[in-house]
Amino acid sequence: MRAAVVVAPDKPLLVTEVPIPAPGPGQALVRVITTGVCHTDLHAARGDWPVPPKADLIPGHEGYGEVVALGEGVTTLSVGEKVGNAWLWSACGTCEYCRTGWETLCLQQKNGGYGVDGSFGEYMLVDERFAARIPEGSDPDEVAPILCAGVTVYKGLKETEVKPGQWVVISGIGGLGHVAVQYAVAMGMRVAAVDVDDAKLLLAKHHGAEVTVNAAKTDPVAAIQERTGGAHGVLVTAVHTEAFGQATGMCRRGGTVVFVGLPPGTFPADIFSTVLNRITIRGSIVGTRQDLAEALDFYARGKIHPTITEEKLDDINDVFERMEAGKIEGRIVMRYVDA
Amino acid sequence: MRAAVVVAPDKPLLVTEVPIPAPGPGQALVRVITTGVCHTDLHAARGDWPVPPKADLIPGHEGYGEVVALGEGVTTLSVGEKVGNAWLWSACGTCEYCRTGWETLCLQQKNGGYGVDGSFGEYMLVDERFAARIPEGSDPDEVAPILCAGVTVYKGLKETEVKPGQWVVISGIGGLGHVAVQYAVAMGMRVAAVDVDDAKLLLAKHHGAEVTVNAAKTDPVAAIQERTGGAHGVLVTAVHTEAFGQATGMCRRGGTVVFVGLPPGTFPADIFSTVLNRITIRGSIVGTRQDLAEALDFYARGKIHPTITEEKLDDINDVFERMEAGKIEGRIVMRYVDA
Amino acid sequence: MRAAVVVAPDKPLLVTEVPIPAPGPGQALVRVITTGVCHTDLHAARGDWPVPPKADLIPGHEGYGEVVALGEGVTTLSVGEKVGNAWLWSACGTCEYCRTGWETLCLQQKNGGYGVDGSFGEYMLVDERFAARIPEGSDPDEVAPILCAGVTVYKGLKETEVKPGQWVVISGIGGLGHVAVQYAVAMGMRVAAVDVDDAKLLLAKHHGAEVTVNAAKTDPVAAIQERTGGAHGVLVTAVHTEAFGQATGMCRRGGTVVFVGLPPGTFPADIFSTVLNRITIRGSIVGTRQDLAEALDFYARGKIHPTITEEKLDDINDVFERMEAGKIEGRIVMRYVDA
Amino acid sequence: MRAAVVVAPDKPLLVTEVPIPAPGPGQALVRVITTGVCHTDLHAARGDWPVPPKADLIPGHEGYGEVVALGEGVTTLSVGEKVGNAWLWSACGTCEYCRTGWETLCLQQKNGGYGVDGSFGEYMLVDERFAARIPEGSDPDEVAPILCAGVTVYKGLKETEVKPGQWVVISGIGGLGHVAVQYAVAMGMRVAAVDVDDAKLLLAKHHGAEVTVNAAKTDPVAAIQERTGGAHGVLVTAVHTEAFGQATGMCRRGGTVVFVGLPPGTFPADIFSTVLNRITIRGSIVGTRQDLAEALDFYARGKIHPTITEEKLDDINDVFERMEAGKIEGRIVMRYVDA
Repeated sequence: MRAAVVVAPDKPLLVTEVPIPAPGPGQALVRVITTGVCHTDLHAARGDWPVPPKADLIPGHEGYGEVVALGEGVTTLSVGEKVGNAWLWSACGTCEYCRTGWETLCLQQKNGGYGVDGSFGEYMLVDERFAARIPEGSDPDEVAPILCAGVTVYKGLKETEVKPGQWVVISGIGGLGHVAVQYAVAMGMRVAAVDVDDAKLLLAKHHGAEVTVNAAKTDPVAAIQERTGGAHGVLVTAVHTEAFGQATGMCRRGGTVVFVGLPPGTFPADIFSTVLNRITIRGSIVGTRQDLAEALDFYARGKIHPTITEEKLDDINDVFERMEAGKIEGRIVMRYVDA
Repeated sequence: MRAAVVVAPDKPLLVTEVPIPAPGPGQALVRVITTGVCHTDLHAARGDWPVPPKADLIPGHEGYGEVVALGEGVTTLSVGEKVGNAWLWSACGTCEYCRTGWETLCLQQKNGGYGVDGSFGEYMLVDERFAARIPEGSDPDEVAPILCAGVTVYKGLKETEVKPGQWVVISGIGGLGHVAVQYAVAMGMRVAAVDVDDAKLLLAKHHGAEVTVNAAKTDPVAAIQERTGGAHGVLVTAVHTEAFGQATGMCRRGGTVVFVGLPPGTFPADIFSTVLNRITIRGSIVGTRQDLAEALDFYARGKIHPTITEEKLDDINDVFERMEAGKIEGRIVMRYVDA
Repeated sequence: MRAAVVVAPDKPLLVTEVPIPAPGPGQALVRVITTGVCHTDLHAARGDWPVPPKADLIPGHEGYGEVVALGEGVTTLSVGEKVGNAWLWSACGTCEYCRTGWETLCLQQKNGGYGVDGSFGEYMLVDERFAARIPEGSDPDEVAPILCAGVTVYKGLKETEVKPGQWVVISGIGGLGHVAVQYAVAMGMRVAAVDVDDAKLLLAKHHGAEVTVNAAKTDPVAAIQERTGGAHGVLVTAVHTEAFGQATGMCRRGGTVVFVGLPPGTFPADIFSTVLNRITIRGSIVGTRQDLAEALDFYARGKIHPTITEEKLDDINDVFERMEAGKIEGRIVMRYVDA
Repeated sequence: MRAAVVVAPDKPLLVTEVPIPAPGPGQALVRVITTGVCHTDLHAARGDWPVPPKADLIPGHEGYGEVVALGEGVTTLSVGEKVGNAWLWSACGTCEYCRTGWETLCLQQKNGGYGVDGSFGEYMLVDERFAARIPEGSDPDEVAPILCAGVTVYKGLKETEVKPGQWVVISGIGGLGHVAVQYAVAMGMRVAAVDVDDAKLLLAKHHGAEVTVNAAKTDPVAAIQERTGGAHGVLVTAVHTEAFGQATGMCRRGGTVVFVGLPPGTFPADIFSTVLNRITIRGSIVGTRQDLAEALDFYARGKIHPTITEEKLDDINDVFERMEAGKIEGRIVMRYVDA
């Protein structure tokens, strides 16, 4: 099969022929139809993180496809079924995190397109227990980014503890943020969007944001305080660290800031005002199978439409370059199979 | 009456004669018997914070005494009743925070010994709606620090969301921390204490800490991880900013760090690990009337014994000097009236 | 002024001239423009409940009007301001319930149109601290029922703990239920409606219910289980006790039933299945000032449109008769003043 | 091996020789050392419930023993390890309940000593993923009842949502209730005990109950209201339905009643007061692996000492007779192997 392989951190991905993997016990082989491209794939390819990925990695954890073969003992998947892989490729099922609905914190988890090969190839393996079940009628292009971008912001929004009718700020209206606006609206929240690009703010408005603030032109903290009375929650999808400090200032007293990105660095948030205003700051990492099933259900009910640009697998290195330069609108989806 | 008055930020308090205040409508005059001395009093006297205190301030918000006169319309207090003032001297009663059990966040709140005169004088005023009701049988010396130190750590422990049977780290076993250990034990938590002073750690052990770590001798992050498996919560009472960064490292995945101090500066906590480990960081400020009533109830049931040193009002400047030098054991209580 | 007065439990209300009340300290006099008529008014007039109402009661707790005079010491209301009364006419502000955001449970609360006179007269009094502030642009007819029906179902929906994207059943699509459907949809819930009247179910559909079940034609428990997989929550607005037993059967495991009505009788729900399925059953009574402010905010944002029939004060006894006979569509609003 | 087998619902158990079972994939064979006897075993033997148990059932789900053989693919258990079985013998691991920390609600769960053979035999099978890991130093007799009685009341107490320092009523101080008192005390709750037997109330006092009420001599509702101000929570371990109605009356406003027993019948609780007082009523069924691990941890830390009577397997029918007659003190434990 054709796949994009990480050869070395300082080299482009090599798009080449590799063997189709064989499903082990409890696994299924999936013919990939589409896959999203996530910033994490870039981190994986560049070797940015302390724990290195597997050797000769095939990245990709927003893969959508069709089951074509079953490993030994598989009982809950069938050939022809539409499934997705995900960052949370598998978890142990028995530790304190797995027992309490926090499998995303399992210390023995395996990650799709990182610790195991992912969806940047024409075939991939999934674990029967963790493969995402794709709702019927899903659009192959649109559904792919739900598998990571969608569930990540959906879970992040839950973690803000913002209730229907309350204000949430989405800070950064890129690939994650423009999907976050849609989830927040579907969850009954009132949305304020902050970005430095008017076109992105217009997209946020189109998706239901009531307030938009261009942080390049106005002080976003003052603007949010004035126009919302202070947000109940802030979801930070932006990756520059200044956004973290601003986020606590945008909250009303008692508010919660959640960030889902993984930039290097430490918080620049002020201790005095965090205490005096009882601010909560929380990191959130992708989502569980349940979060993903819910995120897919919102999508299946027509509430979520990611902005998509289709690319080819062979152009992955070009996509990565544009990603590094911050030049991508919405999400990139690579399609391997025509509908 | 005799009182300690803030004359100017750069001068010592002036202990002098001032008129006894007259209770306004809804207020009561209280003859102060004892008062704790809090680090906040020092901040008030030094003018450390952005919003300045009232002119000619009498500090003090851990005052315990007896009602001696009632203002107009007071129906729920009576002469002879034992009451306390508190940092939350009053709140508006009608804003979104007051309506939802978060009166500590009321933007119109008045603060005892800051915006209104406090307990560093022989008489003080309290607001009928907010005066702490002191349980019968309370020791005048011991109960005073419950009014701020006690309720602050009790509320902070609640805000960690640590459940009975789970691990909490108390970081810093000073005036706040040694009381926190006792509340945590009474709340069914397992306690690990971190400090740089072996005597304080011994006190923590005496009060029920199962694990103690001298951070001057051992890496506290590694020690806590090893001996507790990672804490479910960390209460930071220490005021040096390094303690904040360490605190997130002491948590197990999913854990919560709460800090209750007001040092200048910003968080030095790492974003990557906060996201990956789903850490929550939260500021907590004193407590509501309900929190205070509960904190007093734990005290009244014999669960809490602050370490107390008695001083005289005339020695307040000396007390402040020792406080600035970090030379105080437990809490200082000034007693005006013999039992 | 003209008002409807309860003369005796077994007699019709007497519509007659009575003196305009004078606002006491902290109160305001309100010229009533419209008032909803609630089932509770009927209970008050009939003397159905253990604690009797005040003598010569003027019922009504969905009154909307304009402040025309202020009592002594009122600082937060002004003449000309639009306000409402409510069932929670006042509360003590200091008990454990008032301190914790549960003022609806205050044992010293006063109830509008029950313990104090209400809105079935051309003028009424409100307590400055508890009067509902009516958002600008509100329609006098539509906003009246929000003051009790609206807040009651809104709070009841919160108490189901159903999250956005989950299923809630609204059992009974009458005056409360048809408003509940609208709140649930605005809160991001998926709605199933159960009633015995097809016209009401059609109205529910119009307001966004995805599933409707006519309980007179189908077994509602089986139908809800089949079409939703079991509801995460059930809000029972119906007042016949069979609805309570059915409600637990409609839940999926772990679900919550909330009822807001006050019929006589005991629960007919099965203990074995309640334990095995971990069902939660909860009573909910009106809402706090915060709940009411939120309920009004949803209304002000155009999410809620009660079905209204206008009547005259002089026809109140006729309205009560139709209410007893179950012949009222949506809510009755009596209008005293033309726009 | 020797085992007690259910031959028919209307016959005594047959204690006889049966083959030692062979562990399948993912299972381990356990030599049983002790086992508790639970009321559920009696229900199983009598065929009391709608879904019948397996044919030729060996009951028992409080079995403690030592792993003696491993089935295929077992990696997390080893021979010689001490484990327990439990009512939740296994669950699917992938449904919405298993994904969210509510595996006790899994519709595909298997139950120990009901759907699969249990601990009333000298050997039993456990599922690697669900076998309870027994802390070192556990007493074989004492630890057995933790496996069902302990975890059931511990989970039930959590489900009351009573916080440390608040009042909980334990209604019924039998096999479950006397353990519940100990857990509640260890969790920092204040405990009131209600029973009709003074000896049992004395035991409750011994374990830390501050208030005891003999319901045969005093009205328990009035007594609890007077002596606690109304309980924040009530755990009903009693199985007569009157106890359910009384429980709601014992609550203060806003309180929660949890019941863990499975008597036939419906709630006799009053709707009017449940609504007016915002009472929550909840069923709770055993506990998850996490609940069990926590319950065992409380035991291992010396907080829990069930009252135990040792019996022999051959006397099981006699034990059942005494159980039916309500003549058992604490819990019965059958010991097969001497220490």
